[in-house]
Amino acid sequence: MTVQKVAVVGTGVIGNGWIARMLAQGYDVVATDPAEGAEERMRRAVEQAWPYVEALGLAEGASKDRLTFEKELADAVKDADFIQENVPEVEELKQTVLKNIDQHAKPDALIGSSTSGIMPSELQANLQHPERVVVAHPFHPVYILPLVEVVAGKQTTTENVDKAKAFYESLNMSVLLVRHEIEGHIADRLIEAIWRESLHIVNEGIATTEEVDKAFTHGAGMRYAQYGPFLTFHLAGGEGGMRHMLKQFGPALKKPWTKLEAPELTDELYDRVVSGCEEQANGMSMSELDQNRNEFLIRLYDLVQEYWPKETEKTKA
Amino acid sequence: MTVQKVAVVGTGVIGNGWIARMLAQGYDVVATDPAEGAEERMRRAVEQAWPYVEALGLAEGASKDRLTFEKELADAVKDADFIQENVPEVEELKQTVLKNIDQHAKPDALIGSSTSGIMPSELQANLQHPERVVVAHPFHPVYILPLVEVVAGKQTTTENVDKAKAFYESLNMSVLLVRHEIEGHIADRLIEAIWRESLHIVNEGIATTEEVDKAFTHGAGMRYAQYGPFLTFHLAGGEGGMRHMLKQFGPALKKPWTKLEAPELTDELYDRVVSGCEEQANGMSMSELDQNRNEFLIRLYDLVQEYWPKETEKTKA
Repeated sequence: MTVQKVAVVGTGVIGNGWIARMLAQGYDVVATDPAEGAEERMRRAVEQAWPYVEALGLAEGASKDRLTFEKELADAVKDADFIQENVPEVEELKQTVLKNIDQHAKPDALIGSSTSGIMPSELQANLQHPERVVVAHPFHPVYILPLVEVVAGKQTTTENVDKAKAFYESLNMSVLLVRHEIEGHIADRLIEAIWRESLHIVNEGIATTEEVDKAFTHGAGMRYAQYGPFLTFHLAGGEGGMRHMLKQFGPALKKPWTKLEAPELTDELYDRVVSGCEEQANGMSMSELDQNRNEFLIRLYDLVQEYWPKETEKTKA
Repeated sequence: MTVQKVAVVGTGVIGNGWIARMLAQGYDVVATDPAEGAEERMRRAVEQAWPYVEALGLAEGASKDRLTFEKELADAVKDADFIQENVPEVEELKQTVLKNIDQHAKPDALIGSSTSGIMPSELQANLQHPERVVVAHPFHPVYILPLVEVVAGKQTTTENVDKAKAFYESLNMSVLLVRHEIEGHIADRLIEAIWRESLHIVNEGIATTEEVDKAFTHGAGMRYAQYGPFLTFHLAGGEGGMRHMLKQFGPALKKPWTKLEAPELTDELYDRVVSGCEEQANGMSMSELDQNRNEFLIRLYDLVQEYWPKETEKTKA
């Protein structure tokens, strides 16, 4: 892999997370965003992230000084070997920006889109070099959480998927190649399912946001840091594992526990959700919460690595 | 609270988890289960759990020797101050067993049902002393995970809810009083939503169980050990928090990302899910997986405690 210079297009929460991760792994990064004050916010975000990427380990030569900002997208992407797109989740906007990138980038530069839900075939449809586009969907905070879902579109070449995978692995990420295009890829479908049901519960006045959060984290959530929905149920089945679990809880699947459609996002629901979260923060500022979460995740990440079953087995073997 | 002796009715995975937790907090426990070999399996389960409850801290006088087993339910419950019911999740069976408990227990003994989904008003409907029944729904492994959802039925007295809450708190549990009866209480509605969507993804051949688990744990799952669906999105909104998040992702709620109806549990889906889990275990036995998960959760639990935002604030104040 010969990537040396990466361009980051769009410097919101996700774009800035990518920048910190890329700098930490020794890349030159050039960022661009048309918003007023974007560069200043970006530099602040990188400063805030830096202690955490340091704790996870910097590559040789990694430096915040290797970050530059360009006002014009064309200037940002023209010399880049890899371009990560992170503009707002609006299909037309993403298509326009990608067309712009496609036009000004080197023809063999790879393009990853951070889209949460849009399928890569739709993103690459009108480009001159569609074969170099993948979806590469990370998770906030991008500079700590290891997962990136990589999805190829119909026109993406296998060679370019392999190159993209190698690049994200060079960022110390856990690459999940999603083999079929679906809206929301995989992880966000599960997150959305939790989210919709949570909104229903709050909307119907069954529980507050804080109660929902407590109900989730103190029980299931602690398990999900390590094992996903399948292995969790496999373990909950006792010695019979999933085999027993499906027999025992199969019938309950048909019970109307969950709501099928999303609730209307009324003003009332909006206010209830927003004020619920603000109360839960209990006087901690966003940056205090953020720092608290980061310190936790750094230590949790070590734990997850240490206790990951496959790695343990491989190490033993 | 004057509970000294607890009866545990039904010694499957959940019942045995309760037993270990109760013994660890210094209670006398008498268990009953009509299944062949139940006592032996129970004693083995308590042995396996013991190192973990020791690591979390034993109450003074706590001992595995304070566990007895009775073949007959009537003998098990007759002197108990608190009875925890954990028979299979079949409404008619639970109602029959609760009637039996109600008949043989002291009239003022409290009864908690571990039901995942049945509402307490339905469980207490035909009892002589319905006012003493609550749902008390724990999470596997019960001897480590702190959450218990406590739900009162229409006939449960406030006094008895308070007593039940005090009892579960004496077990070092985090008690969530669920203020409205709904099927699945709160946590299991979220777990079911994830589970149904996961089954759809596997059913349609989009991804394997292992890929779904990886997609969930390495991203969202690590976050959910600490913050629930609401605070997670609050943090992902950047400085604008949930306010920004709802504006940005509100529209996506209407997109058909999730399929909240359950798929048919065909033989093919059954096999795919079971063999997926068995492959994921990668040669580790259920008890190795179990031990690995326990060691992880013990350490994670410490981390979650240390970084819980409210506690931090309270400590500071």
